Amino acid sequence: MARIAPVNAKGTRDFLPRDLVRRNRVFALLRETFERHGYEPLETPAVENTHVLEGKYGEEGDRLLFRILKRGRDLESGFRGAEALPEDGRGAASLARELSNEALRYDLTVPFARVIAARQNDIVFPFRRYQMQPVWRADKPQRGRYREFYQCDVDCVGSRSMTVDAEMAAIHCEVFTRLGFASFVTRINHRGLLAALMESCGVPEELRGEALVTIDKLDKIGVEGVRGELVKAGLSDTSTDKLMEILEVSGAPRDVVAAVRPLLGDHVPGAAALRELDEVFAALAMMGVPAERYRFDLSLVRGLSYYTGIIYETVLTDSTLGSLGGGGRYDRLIGMFTGQDRPCVGISFGLERIFDALDEKGLLADEASTTTQALVTLFAPETLAASFAVARALRAAGMRTEVYTEPKDLRTQLTFANKKGIPLAVILGPDEAARGEVVLRDLRSGAQEPVAQEAVAARAAALLSRS
Amino acid sequence: MARIAPVNAKGTRDFLPRDLVRRNRVFALLRETFERHGYEPLETPAVENTHVLEGKYGEEGDRLLFRILKRGRDLESGFRGAEALPEDGRGAASLARELSNEALRYDLTVPFARVIAARQNDIVFPFRRYQMQPVWRADKPQRGRYREFYQCDVDCVGSRSMTVDAEMAAIHCEVFTRLGFASFVTRINHRGLLAALMESCGVPEELRGEALVTIDKLDKIGVEGVRGELVKAGLSDTSTDKLMEILEVSGAPRDVVAAVRPLLGDHVPGAAALRELDEVFAALAMMGVPAERYRFDLSLVRGLSYYTGIIYETVLTDSTLGSLGGGGRYDRLIGMFTGQDRPCVGISFGLERIFDALDEKGLLADEASTTTQALVTLFAPETLAASFAVARALRAAGMRTEVYTEPKDLRTQLTFANKKGIPLAVILGPDEAARGEVVLRDLRSGAQEPVAQEAVAARAAALLSRS
Repeated sequence: MARIAPVNAKGTRDFLPRDLVRRNRVFALLRETFERHGYEPLETPAVENTHVLEGKYGEEGDRLLFRILKRGRDLESGFRGAEALPEDGRGAASLARELSNEALRYDLTVPFARVIAARQNDIVFPFRRYQMQPVWRADKPQRGRYREFYQCDVDCVGSRSMTVDAEMAAIHCEVFTRLGFASFVTRINHRGLLAALMESCGVPEELRGEALVTIDKLDKIGVEGVRGELVKAGLSDTSTDKLMEILEVSGAPRDVVAAVRPLLGDHVPGAAALRELDEVFAALAMMGVPAERYRFDLSLVRGLSYYTGIIYETVLTDSTLGSLGGGGRYDRLIGMFTGQDRPCVGISFGLERIFDALDEKGLLADEASTTTQALVTLFAPETLAASFAVARALRAAGMRTEVYTEPKDLRTQLTFANKKGIPLAVILGPDEAARGEVVLRDLRSGAQEPVAQEAVAARAAALLSRS
Repeated sequence: MARIAPVNAKGTRDFLPRDLVRRNRVFALLRETFERHGYEPLETPAVENTHVLEGKYGEEGDRLLFRILKRGRDLESGFRGAEALPEDGRGAASLARELSNEALRYDLTVPFARVIAARQNDIVFPFRRYQMQPVWRADKPQRGRYREFYQCDVDCVGSRSMTVDAEMAAIHCEVFTRLGFASFVTRINHRGLLAALMESCGVPEELRGEALVTIDKLDKIGVEGVRGELVKAGLSDTSTDKLMEILEVSGAPRDVVAAVRPLLGDHVPGAAALRELDEVFAALAMMGVPAERYRFDLSLVRGLSYYTGIIYETVLTDSTLGSLGGGGRYDRLIGMFTGQDRPCVGISFGLERIFDALDEKGLLADEASTTTQALVTLFAPETLAASFAVARALRAAGMRTEVYTEPKDLRTQLTFANKKGIPLAVILGPDEAARGEVVLRDLRSGAQEPVAQEAVAARAAALLSRS
């Protein structure tokens, strides 16, 4: 028989049941937390028109789009159009534009902005939504980086209120707490404050970008490292000293706000940013978020250029894994589609990183390897009816119950259950059938006991709930 | 501001929260039913290597694949390869092969077969799995037909036992019953029996395909219609009479089996097929599937060429919507990847058709339009803390609770809740805050009552459970 190589596409993964048991537990916990805060689900298609995606993720992003080949006559005429391209324009980018006008979703934010623009009249604002769907990037695959991976975004559109900014940090805190992480903190800062700092410290406009990149490294290279790099970048000693003075302010968030305020002088947007930060910290306290779970971190910058206000990032404090997620306020993205700004604030969860962190901390170690809770054995045509009846009773009581596919010896069936990690076996041979009983075996302990058939469901439920 | 047209790709849909509330309810019911029968989740990537997909779905299928454009140098050299194609081979198909080596999933069965082949040592057999994921087909979009849509498959690999074939029909019955359909039936037949019928009725080999297509129309064109078409197709009167005699046998499934047996003569594979059908019907009775929910239907043929044994299809008996799902045994597909056959049996659920049917029968009419159960109002900076505290209490009691984004007048906040379809509003102004109370308003009835803050969660839960 001719054999087709069963190879999955580069940078993609198959998820077997034991992978999905743990992934789905995490996904369910996230969904539940989001919905508990009034966030509603939203889903967009995998395929988007290219014009929606292009130019939103920089040149690198455009290059990494998975583009869909045109079909039939469109493909043929695209091909003829490409043939006519001037020699020097025959790079992959020009070809791609002739041969494709659709591409796979690259993130969840741009499709979300498109939906908001397209369905403004169907949506009630302020609109809280979450979205957990795969995205595709033609990156070089490497350990922990895939070409198809899930993103998870939580956003609120239509409000400038700082209570929503605070809520984002509160949701981060609740999720990471419920996942079982013991040591994490959400770093909080404000893009407007960073801009004000640059200005009030007299950093020349052309050096501000580089200065921000340097400040962002404070965690890694320390105060002296940052100072050295700033001076090397061309900042005056006065500017550097003033910046460093502010960066070194530490303490409880609202104390830092109070300490930084006089250092900013009478910078109006800077003062407004500090007021917003102060409101966020006040709201976080009212929301009951523990004080050790967030801090005002003047060195947080974050890369994405569309942030306009408060920004956050949550990191494990006892691991080198880095950020588990972050976000911020971006009041101008939706306007790219509507021609009219709508305020937005959002966070994302770095799911693949979170799975790595859960592994590192052993937090999913005791997870089951199958969804199935009980195996009912099959021994002979005469006992089929009894086995099916017992399975029905277990299912009616809510237990996920598999009946072995065919009559086989006990050893084969128990080996099957053990290999899969099914916790309970309900053994029902001709002897048990004759007595109206089963043997209920706990495969985790090896203990077993005879149980009357009408009592199996209750006894099995008790054994399962004990673990 | 330059405006980007917020248009989704042709044949795709965005799902807003109110769509997802109903979709997710159905998806959850399906998952729960499958897992309750011991089926485990499996997921495969959206992107597959083209060689895995091509040639599995016929020429039409190959044409409808969404192909991914090669990138960078691969694209450029593919393009140069296409330039060198002979003039007559420059159709879209040859171009596609030069410009693409990956494509989007077209169904769930072929990727499943690939995973089984690739992970044979990681999987415990017999392996029951379900899969609910989107697939992509570049079909002409029309009412009820999309280019991106979900499929839902349930399969068992590694057993030839008829108890599994019966279980498939039992799962169909359980799902459609739990969804609320009152009038449906699963038609059951056997591919081997159909082949045997053709042979024992003396239908010439070259006419069998057309004869099967005609028999499949029995429901639509009736006995006389089928007889006429068979004769017109070139079947002899003797063959036609014999076939029609068998097709007209009716009654309880096991009675039909007994009545057809002598009519088949001593045809060995035919007798084996009847034995398998008899075992399936016996198992269905033992599994407690009501007799009116399935029938032995000798005119069921089904299109997919890879079926080798029992086949099924479930239809509403009080609607013209047609099949809600079907499936059968296909013992040879996996062998295309492994070089070694593995027995398989599976069913699928036609999700889009099921949603249409649920609409037609009004079975999702009372579904909520949002996941959110309560809105907590915000009135003034002084009452924020009390509002957040009440929201925490509601969430701790498991209620999905949104806090309005910012202090606003009551009318705005209640209009917001009503538009979204949130059932409860927790109103907390300065007066209520001063008294340690809230006003709990049931937005469905308009009734409201003052409730002490520490009693809100219990009272709200009671109101929600009443509906």
